[in-house]
This record gives sequence, C-alpha cells and structure tokens, in this order.
Amino acid sequence: MEPQLEQRPADWLALGADVGGTSTRILVAAADGTPVGRGVAGGGNPVSHPDTAAAALGQALTAALAGIDPARVRAAVVGVAGGSALSRPEVRAAFDRVWSETGVNCAPAYVSDLEIAFAAGTAEPDGTVLIAGTGAVAGAVQSRHLVHTSDGHGWLLGDDGSGFWLGREAARATLRTLDAGDPPGPLATSVLRALQVPDGPGASAQPPDPHWQRVRVIDALNSRPPVRLAELAPSVTTAYSVGDPQSLRIVDEAARLLFESVCRVRRHDEHTPIVLAGSVASEDSPVGVALRALVSEGLSGPTLSARDGVAGAAWLALTAAEANCATEEARNRLSSV
Amino acid sequence: MEPQLEQRPADWLALGADVGGTSTRILVAAADGTPVGRGVAGGGNPVSHPDTAAAALGQALTAALAGIDPARVRAAVVGVAGGSALSRPEVRAAFDRVWSETGVNCAPAYVSDLEIAFAAGTAEPDGTVLIAGTGAVAGAVQSRHLVHTSDGHGWLLGDDGSGFWLGREAARATLRTLDAGDPPGPLATSVLRALQVPDGPGASAQPPDPHWQRVRVIDALNSRPPVRLAELAPSVTTAYSVGDPQSLRIVDEAARLLFESVCRVRRHDEHTPIVLAGSVASEDSPVGVALRALVSEGLSGPTLSARDGVAGAAWLALTAAEANCATEEARNRLSSV
Repeated sequence: MEPQLEQRPADWLALGADVGGTSTRILVAAADGTPVGRGVAGGGNPVSHPDTAAAALGQALTAALAGIDPARVRAAVVGVAGGSALSRPEVRAAFDRVWSETGVNCAPAYVSDLEIAFAAGTAEPDGTVLIAGTGAVAGAVQSRHLVHTSDGHGWLLGDDGSGFWLGREAARATLRTLDAGDPPGPLATSVLRALQVPDGPGASAQPPDPHWQRVRVIDALNSRPPVRLAELAPSVTTAYSVGDPQSLRIVDEAARLLFESVCRVRRHDEHTPIVLAGSVASEDSPVGVALRALVSEGLSGPTLSARDGVAGAAWLALTAAEANCATEEARNRLSSV
Repeated sequence: MEPQLEQRPADWLALGADVGGTSTRILVAAADGTPVGRGVAGGGNPVSHPDTAAAALGQALTAALAGIDPARVRAAVVGVAGGSALSRPEVRAAFDRVWSETGVNCAPAYVSDLEIAFAAGTAEPDGTVLIAGTGAVAGAVQSRHLVHTSDGHGWLLGDDGSGFWLGREAARATLRTLDAGDPPGPLATSVLRALQVPDGPGASAQPPDPHWQRVRVIDALNSRPPVRLAELAPSVTTAYSVGDPQSLRIVDEAARLLFESVCRVRRHDEHTPIVLAGSVASEDSPVGVALRALVSEGLSGPTLSARDGVAGAAWLALTAAEANCATEEARNRLSSV
C-alpha cells in the first residue's frame, strides 16, 4: 500500500464538464493535460428541466469515469449553460445529488458556460467571450471569473443574433415574401422546404398559393416548441451562399447584434483576448465571418475561437488543482482530438 | 297567426358577432340599425382552442337573443380574429355546432376581423384597415371583402408594433438597463413594479442588485404564457408620458412598423379611407398618435377610427339582408351606446 500512496500526488486527475442544452460532455485529464476519459450524453435545459439535465450529467460522468478510480479526481469544474441556472437551489440540488453518487471526493465548482468557453479559447486570465449557438450571450472575464454579462436573455426576450434569432428572421422573411405574393427566393424556398410546405392544398398546385402557404408556415411553427425555430438557421447560410439579398441582410444584422453584445461588456481601450464560441460565431459560419470583420475593425486584442467548452472546463479544473499546471501545453493537449 | 306572418318582413333582424382573443361580442339590430340585443362573453384563441371560443360564442348568443325569436334573424355576420382560423375545419365545425343550437335559421357568414373593423370605421366599400391590439395585422378591403393582408403572423413570428411587441420591447429595454447596471429609468421601474421584482433578495436590499433582478425578470416572463408580455405595454405608455427616452424610441418604432404594414397593402396613389382599430392604434395611445402623424404625412385618404368591431359585423349583416339598409345612419345607430 505504501508505494501506491506515495505515487498518488503525481497520479491525480482533473475533471471538466460542459452541461449544455443539446449535449453534456465530460473530460477527465491527467495533470499534464493528457485526456484519460470522456463521456457524452444528451443535454437539457437545467432551468426548466433540472432533473433531466442532472440525469444526463450522471450518465456522462459514468461513461467518463469507467475504469478510473473516482477518488483520483482532485478538482472538478462544471460549466452550465445559462448563468441563472446555477443560482437556482433546485438545479444545484439535482446536480449535487448526481455528483454524490459518482464516488468523486472533491466538490465540483459550478461555473458559467462563458467561463469554460473563455478558458477553451485562451490561457489568459482576462478578456471578453461570446457564445452564439442556439442562444447568444457575451461576458467579461477577470481572473478567469465572469464579472459582467450582456444578453443571454433567452429566445423570448433576447439572444439577439443567435441561431434562434436567425431561424426566426428566416421565417419572418418568408412570411413577408408570401404576404406580398412575391415568388419565393432562395431563403423562402429553403424555409418552405424545411417546413415541408407544398405549393398549395392540391396535389399539384399550379401556380403556388402564397396565402395558403403563409397559413401553413405559421401553423407549422406554432405547433412545435418555439426554440425549434433555430432549426431554420441553416436556411440562412444556404441562401447566403448563393447571394440571396434577404440572407445577406439577416447575416449582417446578426453580426451587428452580436458585436453590440460584445461591446456592452468591453471597454474600448481593452487589448485582452476576445474569445468567440458556438456554431453561429465559428469561422465556418457567415455570421462568424462578418462578426470577425466587425471585431477586427472596431476592437483591439486578439480574436480567438473556442471549439470545445469541456476542454476549458478541464483546464480550469487543472488550474484549481495546481496553479502551475495551467500551461498552454496542457490546454493544447486537452483540446486535441 | 295570419297577421303575425304578414308583419314578419318589416320585423327582421340582423346579427353581428366579434369573436376575439379577449372577448366575444354580439349585437342584434333592427333593419334601421337600432340595437335590440347584446351579448358579451369571454374570448379565446379560435385556432388553438376552437371549443373554448365556440362555447364563448354560444354564451354571448344566448344572452343577445334572450326574449327574441331567433327565427327573426335574417342575416348574421361573424368576424373572427386571425384570418387563418376560418380556414380550419375544426374551428368551423365547432362554430357551426354552436350556431345550430341557437334556433337562428340563416347560416352565418364567417369573415375576417379586418372586414368587420373596416365596416365599423366606414360605410365605403374599399380601403385599408389596421388592427393593432395584442396582435397587429393590416388588410386591403375591396367591395367590403378582404383581398390582401400584411403581418398578423402572431407573437412568435410577427405582430410588429402590437401590444405584445410593445410589452416585449419594454422587457428587453429593462433587461438591457439591468445588464448595464444602470439605475432603472421610468420604463424599467414600471416594468419591475409590474412584475413585482424587488430590489434584491433581502427584505431591504440596498443598493438594488441588477444581476439578481435580471434573473428574476427573465424567470417571471418565462414562467407564464409568452402572449402575456402584452401586459407590459401600459408601462411604455406610462413612461412615455413622462418623456422617458427608451419609451419614446419604442413608440416611434412601433408606429413605424405599423405604418409599414399598412403601406404593404396599399398603393401610394390610393385615396380610400384608412381605418385604424384596436387599443394600440387608438387616438388615446401614443403609438396611435404617432401612427396618425405618419399616415397623414405619407398617405392620401381620410384616416378613420373603428371603435367597435361588433357594430361593423352587424352593419355587414344589415347589408347582406338588404343592400339598401347599408346606410350611414344605420351605422351610426349601431355604433351608438
């Protein structure tokens, strides 16, 4: 037993978790950042469905810790989408319950998804971070802690420039086209196809009946959860790629709204990193490209992309376990795969 | 029996109905427009709750026809909010079922709420009509029939400039104020009061905690039906009256959006009447005032206000029963109360 105990200090592990609306991801890593375990499960809105979200966390933890002694985990950081979720006792209680069943001895630190996204993009302690996926939220980070946010108000009240916002604008542009009786352009065509709305009530409606289609679009979108409007965001990207004017306007406006959210949490004279995360803000997305142009024109400081929030969470756990483990090399190892 | 039968022709009645989201109203009138019966019941969204809406119609009909031989009704016009409701077989079936129980012999004509609002505002056959209440929709009317609409897409996708829109903008402005940590102005103060959000978690939180309040506002508005955001519209009016800059911007934008909806269904060279209906478009509302300024500046034709949709429905029923009953005097009698 004695030799094993002496080995322990070098043998400790750090655990990071990214609890999101669509997936829950776990990364367990050695002190140098080498990944030793991963787990993925479904997501869930921790605010509206704390038990579902907690169950997904449990499932992902079980997978990530398979064959690993949970007592080796020295520090754990759990990033949760939606800053407000953490302040709710029922969310915290549901998560704590799952955690106590893992056999991990250390208590997890619950942090915002903005903090893990920032850490996934840079090893610097201070800066600005934006997550634009289905939702959209910007934050100011100081000493790796979130000190200020902008937007992230949810689809009903905000998330301006998000995937939901893009999808809603796609639907709105389609309805305006149908109201006007104009022939559908690339965007409206893509939206009508995505919603499986035919040309008219008959089997071979010729010409298309815009009034009938308009009612079908409204009915289709109101008969499912509103957040699913985000599923129409790809229609904007598709139509943008062929130069559709409606989509060009929507993309520009989304980038402008996201840029405004960033500016609301950042001093103009700052030179710290700006970390962009989420599918809508990625370099592959037209909105991400337009946003980068606005950022490089209007702000100072390097613009970085965060690809994997769970790597940021694991890196923050390394940092918590032993400050001198928080190296750029460790971060690169965590992000590899 | 013979003398009674001979009296019948002069004795006929017309019936109008206004089936709305918040109330259902019936007006029964003599051939000269003199009201002889009224009924009011709750409302209901005919699309999402056809049975509730139909039950309210039945209740209002029973009240309006109390003490009246239903066989005397020669024509009936039922205006239903939301043009799409009428095209749905289940809505139509639920309404027909209720109708068959009234003892009224004639089949009702189901028309759009835009048609009855237009008829409530003018005896002219052609023109433009806007309803801006909880929702917002504009329409072009030809020969008293709706031929073209703009917006009316519902709170999720449109209703730009409506009461819902105003309430959502009030909430959005409040959240931006709280995000920035700025002291709440008249609008944010009114919204926080309406939502019963205190200054902070403690009994006497001093100073106020904007981050905590932000979470409370989001939670409060997401825990009830989205359409109830319209209940915050009065906060805009209140703050507008004391010159609040946020509310000035919101009112101007609402008026601009409603004006755009009107312009989408109206040729620039038209001189027909423009009928404005609904609480948001009324002369008493700041949006209604701003909208009238835009209309009188940008469009030709008289701007008229429709106060009572059910009077328009009853007048259309008079018209249907006997074309020469469709006089301005009859319309005035129907609208009096």
